[in-house]
Amino acid sequence: MGIAEQIQTTLDGRWGEVRQQLRAQLDPDTFGPPAGLIPLDEHRQRTLDAVLQMTKTDAPRDGLTIEQGGTNEHGASVTAFEMLGHADLSVYVKAGVQFGLFGGAVANLGTQRHWDEYLPGMLDGTLLGCFAMTETGHGSDVQSLLTTATYLPDSDEIEINTPSLPARKDYIGNAARDGHIAAVFAQLVVDGENHGVHCVLVPIRDDSGEPRDGVTIGDCGAKMGLRGVDNGRLTFDHVRVPRLNLLNRYGTIDDDGRYHSPIENPSRRFFTMLGTLVRGRISVAGGAGAATRTALTLAITYGLHRKQFTAPDSEREVTILDYRGHQRKLFPRLARSYALMLAQNALVEQMHRIAAGEETSEEAQRELEARAAGIKALTTEHATDTIQVCREACGGAGYLSVNRFADLKADTDVFTTFEGDNTVLLQLVAKGMLTGYKEAFHELDTRGAFFFGARQVTEAVIERTIGGSLIQRLISGSPGRDADNALSDRGGHLDLFEDREKHLLETLAMRLRRAGDDDADGFTVFNDAQPHLLLTARAHIERVILEAFVSAIDATPEGEARDLLDRVCDLYVMSTIEENRAWFLEHGRLSASQAKGVTASVDELCDALRPHAQTLIDAFAIPMAWRETELLEFLGETSEDDGQGVARRSATQDEAVSAER
Amino acid sequence: MGIAEQIQTTLDGRWGEVRQQLRAQLDPDTFGPPAGLIPLDEHRQRTLDAVLQMTKTDAPRDGLTIEQGGTNEHGASVTAFEMLGHADLSVYVKAGVQFGLFGGAVANLGTQRHWDEYLPGMLDGTLLGCFAMTETGHGSDVQSLLTTATYLPDSDEIEINTPSLPARKDYIGNAARDGHIAAVFAQLVVDGENHGVHCVLVPIRDDSGEPRDGVTIGDCGAKMGLRGVDNGRLTFDHVRVPRLNLLNRYGTIDDDGRYHSPIENPSRRFFTMLGTLVRGRISVAGGAGAATRTALTLAITYGLHRKQFTAPDSEREVTILDYRGHQRKLFPRLARSYALMLAQNALVEQMHRIAAGEETSEEAQRELEARAAGIKALTTEHATDTIQVCREACGGAGYLSVNRFADLKADTDVFTTFEGDNTVLLQLVAKGMLTGYKEAFHELDTRGAFFFGARQVTEAVIERTIGGSLIQRLISGSPGRDADNALSDRGGHLDLFEDREKHLLETLAMRLRRAGDDDADGFTVFNDAQPHLLLTARAHIERVILEAFVSAIDATPEGEARDLLDRVCDLYVMSTIEENRAWFLEHGRLSASQAKGVTASVDELCDALRPHAQTLIDAFAIPMAWRETELLEFLGETSEDDGQGVARRSATQDEAVSAER
Repeated sequence: MGIAEQIQTTLDGRWGEVRQQLRAQLDPDTFGPPAGLIPLDEHRQRTLDAVLQMTKTDAPRDGLTIEQGGTNEHGASVTAFEMLGHADLSVYVKAGVQFGLFGGAVANLGTQRHWDEYLPGMLDGTLLGCFAMTETGHGSDVQSLLTTATYLPDSDEIEINTPSLPARKDYIGNAARDGHIAAVFAQLVVDGENHGVHCVLVPIRDDSGEPRDGVTIGDCGAKMGLRGVDNGRLTFDHVRVPRLNLLNRYGTIDDDGRYHSPIENPSRRFFTMLGTLVRGRISVAGGAGAATRTALTLAITYGLHRKQFTAPDSEREVTILDYRGHQRKLFPRLARSYALMLAQNALVEQMHRIAAGEETSEEAQRELEARAAGIKALTTEHATDTIQVCREACGGAGYLSVNRFADLKADTDVFTTFEGDNTVLLQLVAKGMLTGYKEAFHELDTRGAFFFGARQVTEAVIERTIGGSLIQRLISGSPGRDADNALSDRGGHLDLFEDREKHLLETLAMRLRRAGDDDADGFTVFNDAQPHLLLTARAHIERVILEAFVSAIDATPEGEARDLLDRVCDLYVMSTIEENRAWFLEHGRLSASQAKGVTASVDELCDALRPHAQTLIDAFAIPMAWRETELLEFLGETSEDDGQGVARRSATQDEAVSAER
Repeated sequence: MGIAEQIQTTLDGRWGEVRQQLRAQLDPDTFGPPAGLIPLDEHRQRTLDAVLQMTKTDAPRDGLTIEQGGTNEHGASVTAFEMLGHADLSVYVKAGVQFGLFGGAVANLGTQRHWDEYLPGMLDGTLLGCFAMTETGHGSDVQSLLTTATYLPDSDEIEINTPSLPARKDYIGNAARDGHIAAVFAQLVVDGENHGVHCVLVPIRDDSGEPRDGVTIGDCGAKMGLRGVDNGRLTFDHVRVPRLNLLNRYGTIDDDGRYHSPIENPSRRFFTMLGTLVRGRISVAGGAGAATRTALTLAITYGLHRKQFTAPDSEREVTILDYRGHQRKLFPRLARSYALMLAQNALVEQMHRIAAGEETSEEAQRELEARAAGIKALTTEHATDTIQVCREACGGAGYLSVNRFADLKADTDVFTTFEGDNTVLLQLVAKGMLTGYKEAFHELDTRGAFFFGARQVTEAVIERTIGGSLIQRLISGSPGRDADNALSDRGGHLDLFEDREKHLLETLAMRLRRAGDDDADGFTVFNDAQPHLLLTARAHIERVILEAFVSAIDATPEGEARDLLDRVCDLYVMSTIEENRAWFLEHGRLSASQAKGVTASVDELCDALRPHAQTLIDAFAIPMAWRETELLEFLGETSEDDGQGVARRSATQDEAVSAER
């Protein structure tokens, strides 16, 4: 097995076999982007056809438990859908709506009767559904949705109503054209009392495809991207459905018309319900990561072939990937893509353990939600940034639709704000950290430990779910933060990332405590601290990502592949520190000369990774058929390389690694 | 005159009247983006129609000298085309190709006979032209173009040929559908000798619109954006044109078939020719700036109306622009847009003086070219970044085509790499600085000043073309870099920006001097220093931009408008320092506590500008008809504001300014 294949094994992770299957199964003619701009309705039909093809794979069924008619292979399911992120992203999103959001709502918020009635049609595509949560007036603040679901005891029905224009359900995938039923989130009112947001299944089209009485369906029309997804708008005019259409796992109306819930506190109930839907967020990060890897593969391939300007005192034209400026654009982003992919793998494993019932603690679920939010935010932000840079790295050729960046960019653009706006998600992460901090504080306090510093509290609150003992060992073995070689040791890196997170959390907690003061305006205190709060969430997720990277390297057999991964990890570490070095300088964590050293080492790592660029993109193992473009057209003519050359050079690079060591 | 109008006067600059005319002239039905996605050919026709409408305005003729049949009002011309940046950007780009690039090539590289023959048709749109410079294999490195123009003495003709596939002219606007003639850049070979790249006029279509014999025309097809522009590919198979078709201002073939040039040195000749085409680059920056202001106007308007989440202990939903995180996304970018617009105005004035013959020195031209390159790079980079952030700031609504961001983003995306790739342009800026440095060094040296430091050289090389004496006075009057209040004084800001530029330039020059060492590999020395070099160029342009901002404020009458502009300038300064604070810390220019103070003052300035947000976008004076969207749809229902409210609040804010002072 070559170096690239060995690295691929690490990147593919626990469900590598599923990835391999999908690499073979996803026929580009069906799942790939259409050739050129086709009429909107044709693109929508094509997307639907591909989604229906997915029903023939294991992926949808793998995402359900045995009782739900599935196989309980949740990790395999999410991994399979992630692979669609390399295909036409419209297929990826529409499949996500059908199997992930609609199917997920029925599976996670419903009970056996819903599973029996709706999941078979969801699985085989005979029942196409929508996930109607967002309204024109409320997206991030789901608790404030305006749509109502009022129980009518006389007819034993629930009446769904859109009370005002901002209450219109908006941007709903599968609504404009194909969906026949919608999982509608609405304020549940029973006997005059509002029990908060619940989900009700509402048929929206009849068998002939016409909107049902009382349902008005609009079309969101042209969007920046995702042309194949039929986003629409739903307005309900006192539409009645049977009481049993309430997805009633967390709140039910009994035969006597009384509301019951296993969770007393309405706010806790709401967040528990929302928490079960975490898989959608995880999938978005997966798809964004896949699209980013496609873009990097294309741009680095182009960089390996395109030449421009001759070197001084030479007739030789320079390959653009040899320019430090060009390497600086692509390599740190490549390293970050590695880091994010490995963190995503760890996240999917964590999700799988909980979904499969292997892990059941509330803490584990809470941590999963926070981590999913954070990784979704950082991965989608990275996608937008990196795909942009990749486009620019291919110049005018990058601007032509045939070369894929146009779609990659436009399709993934909305990922930063759907399934949770990134800023709101990072706030969620920070709030979770603060809760943990408060609890640890309280716990230490009640244990009688009156005299402890903030640091002890954060020590207690830092959780190392990924590779805990390994990370602890590395940190303990590191030379210490003040040592000269602190920056050249993995334990020192981990320590630095963790120390930053702790300091940010401690000082954030102190700042926010002021909100409790009598004369303080709670909103002003929060608002002034918002940038600090967002930074704290980032620092936390950066640490989690690094731990996932380090753990994955540790699980890779010793040898050249592992050594190369280690250097990619170095680049992730150094470029992350470089980006944040102002903070490290301001807080006395790095001296000026150390900070300059970080910049120098990013340069050195770019140089060191340059000969392995082909290997590092080969390890993504994106089938050639999925990345056909005209990017290399005619470049061969002026280049010494041909297609063969790339393959040959890849081998030579592996030899070079050996030679260097 | 209200505060917004007073600020508008400053922003509109010297050709404010032209802006006002265009605001009235540009009918959105003709110049605005088409409603929804229309078929490609229809969009191209619509774009052509709009370009032909432009022939009825003064703009094209204003861009030519009297001898060329124009009015010599170059600044007015560029300003008018900049206003097209608020319209459908396809129109802006196609007009740029016809009047700016094709027309500019004939005007600047041709002589009287070309002006007489071609410019009238260029002006009235009866002769549609292309600018055929870029080839598939060479874009940035124009000197290495492969197309040949060989003089044939027997027939007194020039033969244009595409010797290989990478020599194909690519991405050529106006080529795929409408152009009848092309200004083709090619290696001019006379009597077996290559005289370097020259420009030759080559008819590419006959009267019926069919490609002429020997000319193969391809279509670049779908692109990320700019759908209305018919980019194409041109291949020439030994196509002959009369000798007189050579645009011969800088190199001619006489009646005896001998080559002559007023500029002996081929490299200098080439750069002089290229330098005359600087206006295209200036226009791209103008259009990018205009598009960015449209995006900011939309996103800030949305932020002023959209509410989400209630404040703690309150039923009140918070207007999203009240969130510090949201302000942090939009306000520093708004401040930078102000800064860039004022720098652009100064650049256009400088260009005008040279084009109109008011300024004739070679130095002035060289400085114009460097400045145009730098401002183009920073403005287009800012456009890509800001339009993206604005889209995200509008969430799902920002993703719908009807709300404009889709087109703004896709259309401007290519601006970062066309008319000069931004990285290559920044290199050009830095190289210009190094040349100046070397010359100053040499000059001081020959004056016998043997014992001088690098600092004296940079003192000599810093040019202050904008507001020179004002800037000098402010710096001299500043409390000095080490003073406690250095950061709260405009002179201190200017000093800090300038000091950074000088330090970067000095150390860069030292680094590159090593390339002359015997054992040094020139490419490696350059390549290792490339990030340093790019940073030096940025620091230079940031300084130039700040000087333009300060000068424009100085020219604004004292009062509230000027005070508000001063605060916007503060935010530009502080957010620029904040972004680069790692550098200032590493180089002992800021202490850790000063650096933290910079971050705090960005927060404070966001807070202080919040009440003036409406005023600050009103000052862009983008006609309401050009920015119709559905962004505010239904927001009024949950909001206390209606359309009236915005206008009212604007007035209240002005009162607030008075009250605060």
